[in-house]
Amino acid sequence: MTERLVLHEYSQSGNCYKIRLTAALLRVPLERREYDIAKGETRTPEFLAGINPNGRIPVLQVGDRFIPESNAACFYLADGTRLVPEDRFDRADMLHWMFFEQYNHEPNVATLRFWRAFVGEDRLGEAQRAQIPAKQAAGEAALKLLDDHLALRDWLVGDRPTLADIALYAYTHVAGEGGFDIAAFPAIGGWLDRMAGEPGYVAMGG
Amino acid sequence: MTERLVLHEYSQSGNCYKIRLTAALLRVPLERREYDIAKGETRTPEFLAGINPNGRIPVLQVGDRFIPESNAACFYLADGTRLVPEDRFDRADMLHWMFFEQYNHEPNVATLRFWRAFVGEDRLGEAQRAQIPAKQAAGEAALKLLDDHLALRDWLVGDRPTLADIALYAYTHVAGEGGFDIAAFPAIGGWLDRMAGEPGYVAMGG
Repeated sequence: MTERLVLHEYSQSGNCYKIRLTAALLRVPLERREYDIAKGETRTPEFLAGINPNGRIPVLQVGDRFIPESNAACFYLADGTRLVPEDRFDRADMLHWMFFEQYNHEPNVATLRFWRAFVGEDRLGEAQRAQIPAKQAAGEAALKLLDDHLALRDWLVGDRPTLADIALYAYTHVAGEGGFDIAAFPAIGGWLDRMAGEPGYVAMGG
Repeated sequence: MTERLVLHEYSQSGNCYKIRLTAALLRVPLERREYDIAKGETRTPEFLAGINPNGRIPVLQVGDRFIPESNAACFYLADGTRLVPEDRFDRADMLHWMFFEQYNHEPNVATLRFWRAFVGEDRLGEAQRAQIPAKQAAGEAALKLLDDHLALRDWLVGDRPTLADIALYAYTHVAGEGGFDIAAFPAIGGWLDRMAGEPGYVAMGG
């Protein structure tokens, strides 16, 4: 990796953490630039024109080019390393878990964490409050599916950690902050411990 | 590709169509098995145990193994072909568009199409109806971002079609059925025409 890598981030975001954890496990140095999303720092004209027209972090800067979407940025860092399986089926299976994370897990588990631990339930709008029961149920279903899968194996794909584990670890290990009872999912508990024991592991938010 | 490939699908689903279009452009033969999602055929104990514990289609069957998540299935089919860029940055940039599709585009553009053209607005529940304005605005924002990007180039990544174009084509070309005014996005119009002109192209639902 010869080009300069800069992570445009908000350090409490699990999506940003995925990229930092991938880089740490691979011992790839990243510069970091913090944005205050509560102050709208990712919606300024400069950010939209220069970094991400979607107005979101994380964005991984590679030289003078930019990769939005956390799981795509992780793929860039890990492409060709042990964190992406060499086997064609396993590589697609890894992506299956990463798309599951963004579609079924993050919009429920991460959103409830953000609403409850960062915004505060009393500050939510009516439309948000109305979505809580559905998001709670969908988040629990996603965690149940993950737990069932991990009951039979140590890692989501193959016999070692891949980007699938990193992508799902990020918001699962702080799901308690969103009101989810992680203790109800015993296989997830063991998997979280295995992830935290990986050489090079870094904690969130640091 | 020596193993038998079976697409478990609902032929009106854009997510299923992505896989069929990828296979068609690559001249890869697929068997197809249709499910009636309105009758709950993807939620039966047999489907959950044998095909996808998430109870969703599409699923790509490869021999006796299964890949859920449309974009992961497309990646399996196209891995190592011209539809996945050889360049590392471009490959991650393609995935960026595919994750954008599942996070910002599909839950708005595809969901409103399903609610308006398949369920019927008068049959929606209160919680669904309350989400329509936000989904309309978010869908228009996703289409605007796509249109702005395509105003300067023929394809989403590099100088030829990739899985990014296929993933975003699927629900964009039928966005009108969801109440979106595609004529308001002129660059998207030209890009839809280019996609439909690709050798091997097949139409949705056929």
